[in-house]
Amino acid sequence: MGASGDHSKTGLAIIAGHGDLPRLLAEECQASGRKYAVVEFENIPLVWASTHPVIPTIFEKTGQLISQMQDADCLEIVIVGAMNRESIDPSKLDDKGRELAIILSETMKGGDDETLSSIIRFFETNGFRVRAAHDVLPSLIPQAGVLTNIKPSDDDIFDASRAAEIVTGLGRLDVGQGAVVGQGLCLGLESIQGTDTMLEFVKNNREGYAPNPTGGRGVLFKAPKPAQDFRVDLPTIGPDTIRNAHDAGLSGVAIDAGGVMVLRRSETVSLANDLELFLWVRPKE
Amino acid sequence: MGASGDHSKTGLAIIAGHGDLPRLLAEECQASGRKYAVVEFENIPLVWASTHPVIPTIFEKTGQLISQMQDADCLEIVIVGAMNRESIDPSKLDDKGRELAIILSETMKGGDDETLSSIIRFFETNGFRVRAAHDVLPSLIPQAGVLTNIKPSDDDIFDASRAAEIVTGLGRLDVGQGAVVGQGLCLGLESIQGTDTMLEFVKNNREGYAPNPTGGRGVLFKAPKPAQDFRVDLPTIGPDTIRNAHDAGLSGVAIDAGGVMVLRRSETVSLANDLELFLWVRPKE
Repeated sequence: MGASGDHSKTGLAIIAGHGDLPRLLAEECQASGRKYAVVEFENIPLVWASTHPVIPTIFEKTGQLISQMQDADCLEIVIVGAMNRESIDPSKLDDKGRELAIILSETMKGGDDETLSSIIRFFETNGFRVRAAHDVLPSLIPQAGVLTNIKPSDDDIFDASRAAEIVTGLGRLDVGQGAVVGQGLCLGLESIQGTDTMLEFVKNNREGYAPNPTGGRGVLFKAPKPAQDFRVDLPTIGPDTIRNAHDAGLSGVAIDAGGVMVLRRSETVSLANDLELFLWVRPKE
Repeated sequence: MGASGDHSKTGLAIIAGHGDLPRLLAEECQASGRKYAVVEFENIPLVWASTHPVIPTIFEKTGQLISQMQDADCLEIVIVGAMNRESIDPSKLDDKGRELAIILSETMKGGDDETLSSIIRFFETNGFRVRAAHDVLPSLIPQAGVLTNIKPSDDDIFDASRAAEIVTGLGRLDVGQGAVVGQGLCLGLESIQGTDTMLEFVKNNREGYAPNPTGGRGVLFKAPKPAQDFRVDLPTIGPDTIRNAHDAGLSGVAIDAGGVMVLRRSETVSLANDLELFLWVRPKE
């Protein structure tokens, strides 16, 4: 049972990117009896959407999308799942689409936060209320504590603390949301390509950077950017994160309490237990 | 003609790691008639050292090294070239070696700056004066300006500025000294593995991250960390940096004026000209 039912009588449009999160939210709405629709972009086909009400659209037809969502009585929206910087066909743009494209062309150079804030403002200006995924489905954000059988060692706690310091600094620059630290050494920093690509980099480039053979094997830490709008782009982890952290030889994964969503939590925790990694929801210091 | 001759009558010990810099300094001392010796570690063999006076040593015998440098009248030292975190054989340590190993074990977790500062303090405490490579050979640090035929475009200037902002932030965290930005997007951040590994990462992971086909192709920016001791570990670039930046599809390389050494400058600039990259010594903003 989500928190969605009480907040509003209006329907929720789930503007869906790649990944698990849009599906989880649709299932939550379905289960709780909330009115909703899944907005499916032509170039982000959703194999799971057939059992849900769908609004089909393309990126260029923003004006048409706005009407469709209004017609479906969806005045609240949630923008979830990964969207790459999709290319736009200028010949297909409607008036609202052109307006949004201009806004994006001006803000995209400024970093993700600025881009996403401008998208939120655009929808708000057009009469929608933008909600956060974890506001619709609060169980996505776990309470502080260690979720796995394995607990972080003193070395891991030290590495997580150093990584948290680094991620906070990166976040202030509106760059990444993750870093890997092992034995105090920064083995990887998240840039635009995201966490999984960083973990692959660490896997391929960590040899010789663990001076103490009995010391910490390294920790992935993730946290939201301090200035980011919590309604979109809150970082997520899931089973892939655990698998990739394991492949990179790490001891475990630490996430900032209150700011990182865990997708498919039971599968994620059980995989971490199988692979003997810790998953630590780290309280803020 | 370097600035070395005037400052001191004592000899200079060049404590040599990997790379070109130790050789360049030895050649400068030889050419200028300054007394000097090259300290060669057993596990960092120097193929170029046969025409220079050499003090052979191993990492564990720090006390012996101190005596050898004193005997050779080398009371000034310069610590140059890349040294990985070499392993130590505890059974070979002499008293001073043990003292230094303990200091390093305490500071290595704190980041490079702390480690290097502690090494400098150790040698100063033992009666040596630690000098900077660019103090011995000032021409290593170029004046502000564009050194190549190709000049940075407005897009490149924008990207270099964003990268400089990021590198300054990273530097405050005592992490990397470099970043790659293209069209405002952070494509790579330097962690412990260094610039060349970051450029290889960018080469392999930048597809799809240049939304505008006629926009900037990306810029590597390098700068020293704000808090670092300028006597060691000042960042360097050379022909390899240019070649790797080219392979990563970048428009050029920008370095912080006054804080980055250019090795084999004429070769570096001429390669950049051949590959149609710019090399910009960027004044501080």
